[in-house]
Amino acid sequence: MTRSRRKLLTMVAESGLEKRLVAVLHAAGARGYTVSAAHGEGPRNQRAGDISGGNIRIESVLSEAVLDEILAKIATDYFPHYALSAWVTDVEVLRNDRY
Amino acid sequence: MTRSRRKLLTMVAESGLEKRLVAVLHAAGARGYTVSAAHGEGPRNQRAGDISGGNIRIESVLSEAVLDEILAKIATDYFPHYALSAWVTDVEVLRNDRY
Amino acid sequence: MTRSRRKLLTMVAESGLEKRLVAVLHAAGARGYTVSAAHGEGPRNQRAGDISGGNIRIESVLSEAVLDEILAKIATDYFPHYALSAWVTDVEVLRNDRY
Repeated sequence: MTRSRRKLLTMVAESGLEKRLVAVLHAAGARGYTVSAAHGEGPRNQRAGDISGGNIRIESVLSEAVLDEILAKIATDYFPHYALSAWVTDVEVLRNDRY
Repeated sequence: MTRSRRKLLTMVAESGLEKRLVAVLHAAGARGYTVSAAHGEGPRNQRAGDISGGNIRIESVLSEAVLDEILAKIATDYFPHYALSAWVTDVEVLRNDRY
Repeated sequence: MTRSRRKLLTMVAESGLEKRLVAVLHAAGARGYTVSAAHGEGPRNQRAGDISGGNIRIESVLSEAVLDEILAKIATDYFPHYALSAWVTDVEVLRNDRY
């Protein structure tokens, strides 16, 4: 079965940022995303999840072009101001047309 | 420490499909799986999670042969009918005999 | 945008192990982690999550050196005694200094 290469972006942030981060995904052309509740700790001992109702873990399967646009946006608008973690993984999908 | 290569399959679907998708994993020979609650949005603006009690995110570490069998099954029986997302990641495991 | 290569370690265990596994991460030098609630099944039909309040899924982005130290520790102290699953994924991060 043919698989196509895509990028999986995972972001972890305080839950109050969910709507804004989803808007960033949509604006860049992401076609779907998955959100799970989470808690944890960041490199500055931030524990945002304890204060504000938990963290969220958002993941989205993206083309390289859409990924680049999202990374540029979050690097400029979010990294300087928020405890946002983000990492990128190579993934394969079956349904080429969905992502 | 020696690591062995495996495949991680991640599937996101409405929570009502959990039992059936777990049965697909078992039937193909998967030896374990992890389920987390999730919500989100798919490429057709499906928001199944809002209607039916949320989505689930199922992940399972698999051999390539088991993965292929599961992908063939979900491509035939689930993709045409359900808002199921699936992606595959290369992973490494320490315990060769568990997966 | 420059991305740096790191390793993502994902561990799944019963929730009672969360504090101890987080201590293992910290002791090795991990700078952050994310925990989500989960349930599931392991290769020996363990269903720890049913008994003890659920499983947890812990993930942490690490350097290769920190990863190796954590894997050595869990292989010695946890794998023989607990239903702990662990897998490693190659990831890329934007913020070199955080991980």
